[in-house]
Amino acid sequence: MEHKFFKTIEKAKLINKIKKVKYEEYEEYEEINTEDSLGRVLYQDIVSKEDLPLCNRSSMDGYAVISKNTFGASDSLPAYLGCVGKVSVNSFPERQVLDSECMQIPTGGSLPVGADSVVMVEYTKKISDNTIEIYKSVAPNENVMLQGEDIKKNKLLLKKGTKLKAQEIGILLAVGITKCTVYKKIRCGIISTGDEVVPTDKKVKPGEIRDVNSYTLSCLSTQAGAVFKRYGIVKDNFDSLKSYLTKALKENDVVFLSGGSSVGAYDFTIKVINSFKNKNILSYGLSLSPGKPTITALIDNKLVIGLPGQVASALVVMKVIFVPVLKFLMGAKDAFEKKPLMKAILTRNIASKQGREDFVRVSISMKKGEIFANPVTAKSGLLTSLINSNGLITIPSNCEGFYKGDIVDVIKW
Amino acid sequence: MEHKFFKTIEKAKLINKIKKVKYEEYEEYEEINTEDSLGRVLYQDIVSKEDLPLCNRSSMDGYAVISKNTFGASDSLPAYLGCVGKVSVNSFPERQVLDSECMQIPTGGSLPVGADSVVMVEYTKKISDNTIEIYKSVAPNENVMLQGEDIKKNKLLLKKGTKLKAQEIGILLAVGITKCTVYKKIRCGIISTGDEVVPTDKKVKPGEIRDVNSYTLSCLSTQAGAVFKRYGIVKDNFDSLKSYLTKALKENDVVFLSGGSSVGAYDFTIKVINSFKNKNILSYGLSLSPGKPTITALIDNKLVIGLPGQVASALVVMKVIFVPVLKFLMGAKDAFEKKPLMKAILTRNIASKQGREDFVRVSISMKKGEIFANPVTAKSGLLTSLINSNGLITIPSNCEGFYKGDIVDVIKW
Repeated sequence: MEHKFFKTIEKAKLINKIKKVKYEEYEEYEEINTEDSLGRVLYQDIVSKEDLPLCNRSSMDGYAVISKNTFGASDSLPAYLGCVGKVSVNSFPERQVLDSECMQIPTGGSLPVGADSVVMVEYTKKISDNTIEIYKSVAPNENVMLQGEDIKKNKLLLKKGTKLKAQEIGILLAVGITKCTVYKKIRCGIISTGDEVVPTDKKVKPGEIRDVNSYTLSCLSTQAGAVFKRYGIVKDNFDSLKSYLTKALKENDVVFLSGGSSVGAYDFTIKVINSFKNKNILSYGLSLSPGKPTITALIDNKLVIGLPGQVASALVVMKVIFVPVLKFLMGAKDAFEKKPLMKAILTRNIASKQGREDFVRVSISMKKGEIFANPVTAKSGLLTSLINSNGLITIPSNCEGFYKGDIVDVIKW
Repeated sequence: MEHKFFKTIEKAKLINKIKKVKYEEYEEYEEINTEDSLGRVLYQDIVSKEDLPLCNRSSMDGYAVISKNTFGASDSLPAYLGCVGKVSVNSFPERQVLDSECMQIPTGGSLPVGADSVVMVEYTKKISDNTIEIYKSVAPNENVMLQGEDIKKNKLLLKKGTKLKAQEIGILLAVGITKCTVYKKIRCGIISTGDEVVPTDKKVKPGEIRDVNSYTLSCLSTQAGAVFKRYGIVKDNFDSLKSYLTKALKENDVVFLSGGSSVGAYDFTIKVINSFKNKNILSYGLSLSPGKPTITALIDNKLVIGLPGQVASALVVMKVIFVPVLKFLMGAKDAFEKKPLMKAILTRNIASKQGREDFVRVSISMKKGEIFANPVTAKSGLLTSLINSNGLITIPSNCEGFYKGDIVDVIKW
């Protein structure tokens, strides 16, 4: 008898199924203050309503001049210009610069009408109150930032789907966009199941284990940019899990279940999911290691993920599949794209089974400027293997492993 | 006349000066709930008071056996064992396993006294209610996680200075450590200065620019794990800046000033810093680009950093120096160590001045599995150069540049 536990599909196939779901529920957005938008994803294209800079500005301390008045100027044959005033940094100069005239200007000052360039102060000498010697010629527009040179009015500035970092927030505020529309944060419900699981603050007896997954999952949800609600520990009781899952589905966009590691615990989760009317199981298991017994389902079009109870397995599956899924649901359309990764030299052979994608924990080290990935040898269930490693390498399913000295891509974690 | 503006020191020299300061003020800690400690740094060594697991546990669904009873068992010559019960997942089995006996056991179940290994259910067949056929021999300890195999009681688990990620939080909670002592978050005061600077929500006139730095700096402080307080825009007025700086120093551990870009604005910041009694200027400028006019000072042993007014320069200096400084002050003693970075192939020649460390913005792209770094060509002041790039490469001060095709290290940003 073939147990459903063994009906695994590939990670890529699961991701394709997830991408094809029509997530009306998730396409939600909200307007927030740009200053509070760090890490959020734009739900709108942003067009600037202003030029930046607003007018021609000096990028140096010096003198605003008409460039042709400086042509040929040198140490031995300076040009002499009449200084007709000083530009203040915060207002537009009222007087214009005429032939053979110049005006003192600070970095950031607005270029007076008539002037087309700035001579750096280092190449000038004040001869008298209103005569300046110029030792170097400047070309038109030299040391000047032209109106709209940085950002052009009415042009697309940032595209929908852009993740907002310090840089993007800076640029939005620079053109006065103090509010923006972003994808809402996904709400993740987290339910821990298992008769042997007890709260973290409880003294344990032999046979009991503390509920670690509720917390590692909430950490990863937070890092993905989501919000979470923990529902605590539900005993292996059908009615109890069904009622918690119903509640969590009502209050969240995605629900994570983390169950025991036995076939019995697995069957129990499947049974509860199957008892919902509008359900669709996307995966009974995944052809990867660790993390094979991962259930993915839709209930009323919301994702329900049954993670392995083993902490390390659940963490790997989250890292390589469901953290990207959360980001995808929050607008990062490139969440599943292959990203440039750090490369490292493998320090020993690692074997893998064909037909299964393997994720191997490694610790990264540096020696003489070279980066090495050292596979962490440990039984799969050991928590300490998690803190002794700081990266993962992927062995594709069509590959029997890597050799010592091979260059591998490292996913940091 | 040599202006102080030109008295630059190297980045490494500044960092050494900063490391040598005795930061009594910063060596502050607090006890928090482990579940809330994501991203914090441990202020204490952590020793586990328990073994994990607490007793020998099965890592498979199957039968707990005495391994020697299975020696020689095969498909053609199975061993027959008397099944004397079933281990429940959450309690220690009351009965022990004697010679020629076995007990059904789920993944995670506690191994009964007497048994030393587990035969996976796949290699067994139930012949009758109390007779099990075994098709495969197991070695002692096979499919068993031994008491303390993961974590040993009274042994160092995590060192002071460890950054707490999901993994570390999981492991602390697994052994019941629900509270831990971490470094306090550094408080950063942020003051924007300049007569030409106006609030971000103001309609600007020619000559005025919006206050971008207050927000990019607060984003970077947040990402470093610090908290911040913005003091808004202070006009170029000695008394006003002095009183704001005094207030910010009282309320924070570090104060960032971001001033105008002119020599006048620079001089003004120096003048205000010098007016404090207990001050020590660590740098008048840095031999790097962009970011040369960066002032670093101590006032009453607190760091005061005068950043360039130019947004891009301020961001680069923060990224390569002061974000690591903030992390250092929050316990990350490795904040200044050379980290393994992503390597990429440079797509064109870039020249640099000797005696100056250059940070070049690049955009990263992938083609046929290779990673390329494309230098972003732009005038240094352009904000758009920030959003068109997603990395920085470093040209050391003793180097005249890199050639197209060179392999370079990329700092993501």
